[in-house]
Amino acid sequence: MPAGPFGSEDDILNTLRRYFPLRRPGILVGRGDDCALLPAGKPLSISSDLFLEDVHFRTSYATAEEIGHKALACNISDLAACGSRPLAFTLNLGLPGNIDPVWLNAFFDGMGSLAARYGLGLIGGDLSRTDKLTVSITVFGEVVGVGGFLSRAGSMPGDSIFIVGAIGLARAGLYELEKRGRAAFEDYPNACQALLKPEPRVDAGLMLARVGMNARPPALMDLSDGIARDLPRLLGLTGETGVWDEEGQSLGAELLIPAGLLHKELVTWCSRNGRNPVHEALLGGDDYALLGSCAPDMLVALHAAIPDFWEIGVVTEGDRIFCNKEPVDALTGFDHFSS
Amino acid sequence: MPAGPFGSEDDILNTLRRYFPLRRPGILVGRGDDCALLPAGKPLSISSDLFLEDVHFRTSYATAEEIGHKALACNISDLAACGSRPLAFTLNLGLPGNIDPVWLNAFFDGMGSLAARYGLGLIGGDLSRTDKLTVSITVFGEVVGVGGFLSRAGSMPGDSIFIVGAIGLARAGLYELEKRGRAAFEDYPNACQALLKPEPRVDAGLMLARVGMNARPPALMDLSDGIARDLPRLLGLTGETGVWDEEGQSLGAELLIPAGLLHKELVTWCSRNGRNPVHEALLGGDDYALLGSCAPDMLVALHAAIPDFWEIGVVTEGDRIFCNKEPVDALTGFDHFSS
Repeated sequence: MPAGPFGSEDDILNTLRRYFPLRRPGILVGRGDDCALLPAGKPLSISSDLFLEDVHFRTSYATAEEIGHKALACNISDLAACGSRPLAFTLNLGLPGNIDPVWLNAFFDGMGSLAARYGLGLIGGDLSRTDKLTVSITVFGEVVGVGGFLSRAGSMPGDSIFIVGAIGLARAGLYELEKRGRAAFEDYPNACQALLKPEPRVDAGLMLARVGMNARPPALMDLSDGIARDLPRLLGLTGETGVWDEEGQSLGAELLIPAGLLHKELVTWCSRNGRNPVHEALLGGDDYALLGSCAPDMLVALHAAIPDFWEIGVVTEGDRIFCNKEPVDALTGFDHFSS
Repeated sequence: MPAGPFGSEDDILNTLRRYFPLRRPGILVGRGDDCALLPAGKPLSISSDLFLEDVHFRTSYATAEEIGHKALACNISDLAACGSRPLAFTLNLGLPGNIDPVWLNAFFDGMGSLAARYGLGLIGGDLSRTDKLTVSITVFGEVVGVGGFLSRAGSMPGDSIFIVGAIGLARAGLYELEKRGRAAFEDYPNACQALLKPEPRVDAGLMLARVGMNARPPALMDLSDGIARDLPRLLGLTGETGVWDEEGQSLGAELLIPAGLLHKELVTWCSRNGRNPVHEALLGGDDYALLGSCAPDMLVALHAAIPDFWEIGVVTEGDRIFCNKEPVDALTGFDHFSS
């Protein structure tokens, strides 16, 4: 392995090839041509996200392996939220000119390990030089069975609201890592791990899609901006996502989130920093949990089938959200362009 | 329209909505959910590219409308090179915090006009703040008919080599625009237009796919890095693209490109700058022409059906490329990471 920066695009592509097989079953044409070709057959779920240095991650405390993992994990999480099985992805990568080959190998290793775990083929992309590390990924997933795509839409009054995964934990990890760097792992290993190496909830998403096939399907979304910001999207309280543009429908929610059920690292962190753990859990961010609603008669089956399944409230006819009787409206998430 | 910078992500999404309809026929779920959903039916061609400020374009002399157009045009050109019909795209957009709303409207207008012309739906993407304008697009196209995907692979000795479109013209435009800004339009309007607002060759690609259905299909690729760099890829002389990794086959070519057949603005520019027009045409770059090879008995039909179809040579059994008897090997294109 060369000790200095890469000499050329070919060097980088050769490195990449070690971690991502050129061909995979189920992909008609892999990378290397002008386009890749995916077979006809099942409807295709597609999602695309940016993952940018100093916006979405920092190289100062996240390892190359963690950055590679999370860049892909965030995208797979969108497939999970639609109940889709991961199939393939494209990678557009902007690298600083002085990128360290050891760093880049670890980055591809982190991404490649996750891709291999879910059988995701890298089917194309682009490479360029940028000032800061720039990752843009598009993922493709298969819908499982007829009508198996789980949309955000469809919540009805009386539906149960649930999450799969921890909330607020990555938020505590972010604060501590920003303050103390990797020393934060000593006190908050799970919180740091939750932020730096989230696990997409693919199995839970597939299970929810299967359960939805014999009944009214759950409404489901990826919890990436925190419940306070994402639950209004699920309930149609904001037109931002476009899902509800035409329907114009809107609903409310009553949540019950006892602090005692939150992760103990979040509770510890809040008591040390004079914060309210329920508020922090609602603000969240980077949770990569699933947030959904379903008919109450599905709950028994879902509790039994999905680890970390947690019922947190009920959909109401109003247009406001309450948690433990407190209004949640005033809490807002993160907006990349607000001042 | 607000006079200052945008206030929030929602402002930007509202602007975007004016230029890109939320729904289009043939798309099961459009943007606004965690994933979009494309229907099963035909195999799907997929390509993804970066389009970056100061790497692929400059805001100093390219207008917002041209930048929006070209970002998408480069991607559509990859679909054309596979003989696919454009269907949809995702847009990941990094914008500086002080982006001018007038500029952004024009950017979306340029991209939206091209999308509308080809019936491309915007089905998803992401928005973030970046120091420099960052565009990452993934496009999706339908393969037309059975076996209609045109690969780069398949050239055979004796095949005719052809291009569709002008070569070297955008290169002259680039040099002049870098030197003189938009004043270059006075002397070289076509060259500047070729660089700043390329037209993807979708109709030609579809025609080549149709012709290929009743015979051995043409080998085809997108000419973006110049013939000197792209023809070896078509012929399997470089493993860089991965197409030929397993086959290990390699071929040569004898090209005949009379200077008199090149665009007169390229010839004028070369005579004023002491350059060889054929060399400049081979170096090219940003041509967004199609480069391919086919059985000679297809030529009559292709000449008749495709405007700007130009036969430039023949595939040989050797492993070297000659143009007008001169070896082309020493000419190389652009490598983002070479020093």
